[in-house]
Amino acid sequence: MDLELAKRLSQPNTTKIILCVLDGLGGLPRHETLRSEMEAAQITNLDRLAQRSEVGLTVPVGPGITPGSGPGHLALFGYDPYKFDIGRGVLEAVGIDFELGPDDVAARGNFCTLATDGTVSDRRAGRVATEESTRIVERLRTISIPGVEIFVEPVREHRFVLVLRAKGLGDRVSGTDPQKEDVPPLAARALDEESSGTADAVNAFITSATEMLRDEPQANGIMLRGFAKYPTLPQFTDTWGLRAAALAVYPMYRGLAKLAGMTALACPGGMEEQIQRVRDEWDNYDFFFLHYKKTDAAGEDGDFERKMQALQEFDAYVPALIELGADVLMIGGDHSTPALMAAHSWHPVPFLLHSSYCREGNARSFAEQECVRGSLGIFPAVDVMPLAMAHAMRLEKYGA
Amino acid sequence: MDLELAKRLSQPNTTKIILCVLDGLGGLPRHETLRSEMEAAQITNLDRLAQRSEVGLTVPVGPGITPGSGPGHLALFGYDPYKFDIGRGVLEAVGIDFELGPDDVAARGNFCTLATDGTVSDRRAGRVATEESTRIVERLRTISIPGVEIFVEPVREHRFVLVLRAKGLGDRVSGTDPQKEDVPPLAARALDEESSGTADAVNAFITSATEMLRDEPQANGIMLRGFAKYPTLPQFTDTWGLRAAALAVYPMYRGLAKLAGMTALACPGGMEEQIQRVRDEWDNYDFFFLHYKKTDAAGEDGDFERKMQALQEFDAYVPALIELGADVLMIGGDHSTPALMAAHSWHPVPFLLHSSYCREGNARSFAEQECVRGSLGIFPAVDVMPLAMAHAMRLEKYGA
Repeated sequence: MDLELAKRLSQPNTTKIILCVLDGLGGLPRHETLRSEMEAAQITNLDRLAQRSEVGLTVPVGPGITPGSGPGHLALFGYDPYKFDIGRGVLEAVGIDFELGPDDVAARGNFCTLATDGTVSDRRAGRVATEESTRIVERLRTISIPGVEIFVEPVREHRFVLVLRAKGLGDRVSGTDPQKEDVPPLAARALDEESSGTADAVNAFITSATEMLRDEPQANGIMLRGFAKYPTLPQFTDTWGLRAAALAVYPMYRGLAKLAGMTALACPGGMEEQIQRVRDEWDNYDFFFLHYKKTDAAGEDGDFERKMQALQEFDAYVPALIELGADVLMIGGDHSTPALMAAHSWHPVPFLLHSSYCREGNARSFAEQECVRGSLGIFPAVDVMPLAMAHAMRLEKYGA
Repeated sequence: MDLELAKRLSQPNTTKIILCVLDGLGGLPRHETLRSEMEAAQITNLDRLAQRSEVGLTVPVGPGITPGSGPGHLALFGYDPYKFDIGRGVLEAVGIDFELGPDDVAARGNFCTLATDGTVSDRRAGRVATEESTRIVERLRTISIPGVEIFVEPVREHRFVLVLRAKGLGDRVSGTDPQKEDVPPLAARALDEESSGTADAVNAFITSATEMLRDEPQANGIMLRGFAKYPTLPQFTDTWGLRAAALAVYPMYRGLAKLAGMTALACPGGMEEQIQRVRDEWDNYDFFFLHYKKTDAAGEDGDFERKMQALQEFDAYVPALIELGADVLMIGGDHSTPALMAAHSWHPVPFLLHSSYCREGNARSFAEQECVRGSLGIFPAVDVMPLAMAHAMRLEKYGA
């Protein structure tokens, strides 16, 4: 649904909506058993809920497209992931809870190893340890560029974030990573007039950094890409008329929710704390986004058993989630992360929606193959929000 | 399918197509039995036909969107309901069989109650009885505005239609209903230059009406909205090469069919007469649209049993419908109207298409859950016409 239409059709109500995102939920069957993680796990609470819900499979971005966390979540929040593209620099900053302002341009940084002739000999500086790169980041913080405030923040291993802050900086700047070795890093180039000051500042920063890091054994060079400003997305409250809260352990997901205009509530304690906070904040919000990471982490590690366990661990919280008494309870995922692939994948993701207005009874359990038979079918993740709004009786009739 | 492409691919044939629209066909399961109206009804003729047809579910407008009758039907007629938006004034006029001309601007009118200070104390004038409002409409007909011909027609209870007729009237005029009480009605404002004459005439009409109705106890004020001219849609014959007839009891559905360029034939006697007229007119048309209202009426009243009966009543006509011998027989709905909700809803609508070229055998019966398993899947209602044309061997190959 076009967001302008969403805004036009949205109407106030007192109903509550919960969206639980199990990161990397979908999986693939093991060849020996022909059962996926969801099919093999003992998730009887989810199975029972699926029997009383509308189920289907969400296509996160498009057929065959493997999404990153950004598009995977934005689609579930109702944003066309082709249209709303969040720059990598912003995602990196959001992922470490850096508060980007409207005058900031963020970039993803990589430490690299430069040979004596100035060419790149290792694009990841031997995956330098996080403690090492944190120390080097401290050194880079001493660099000053006239007229531009500089922030350098460590991320993990060879990755860091650079933020330039000054009025009027454009973000259309080309990356300096040549994407191969044995050639020198590229100079940053402005891709529009507004960004020429940014490119100059970036090149000045790189020159100072290369000078300063000359004595480092591994990480003696830097490469920057994904220059981006904090995007101004249509905000959740404005589009859907929902006061929305995000409850997530990891900053990346709180950050993505903040992009959409949700209030991010940190819940370091995990699901138990997340559910308790929903209970505490029940009257203050209409929409609650809960993020569960363990399914994706196990999938990324290629650990089928641990992904099963993560599902079972979540399953134990399902009765408490139901007891919250939301008018619409949705459980889905931002993408699949099959243990078999040890990576994100393009496969559609099991999804269930429970409300008083459901065509229930299609699925016997909550898993990939059962969801194919569901009354929601296979559908774009970007349609989740309109469906939720409809089931919450928060959308007006279209046309007379 | 884009209508230009439809026109390009359409080819002549002697085949016949019947589209039966059961208004508000889709439903929801009762919580006690987990069976919907269609699942609970004894509709053995429809069930048998579904077994020999391609079945699926149509999404009338978009996921989560509850359509009015206008978009619900236009989509089935092949018009993208986002693109072809029929103004409310036109729909009201069409719904009472008022023949709108090309120079007419129609508006939906509401009688309201005004307090002595001129503010709205009841936006529906206590839902004044139809006989009362018909009497008051007679009074309003005496108002004359220089240079503009005025028509006032009663609809039902507090609703009426105002039509202004004059060359060059624009229809971009803001509504006068403030959408809340305890404030005065708004003045009509022209939203473009062409509509300034319309706004002036509307305001003059309102001033005279308010003066005239001063002595009415309930309906002493009026509010107008949904100003619209009769839209010029691409016509059925031109787009699809089909001579099309509409057979409907209610003027609203004849009117919607006329918008598409169909010839509307009144059939006050209902299905028996509708089928007889198809028989009589067989050689004169290629496409027959039959409208059946009782399913929606029962659903709107929240009467599960009566909706079952309406389905059963329709089911009895299915043998006669089949006997007509159309090359393509389709049975579907413009939207769902679950008795459980006593209102239109967004849920996809069961649909069947019977022809000599069907992948049949997916569904055991004609109902919501069975249609999920059908060979048509869940698909946009706007795709019904291209499918019908294909099964009627009336679409050329695309590309070499």
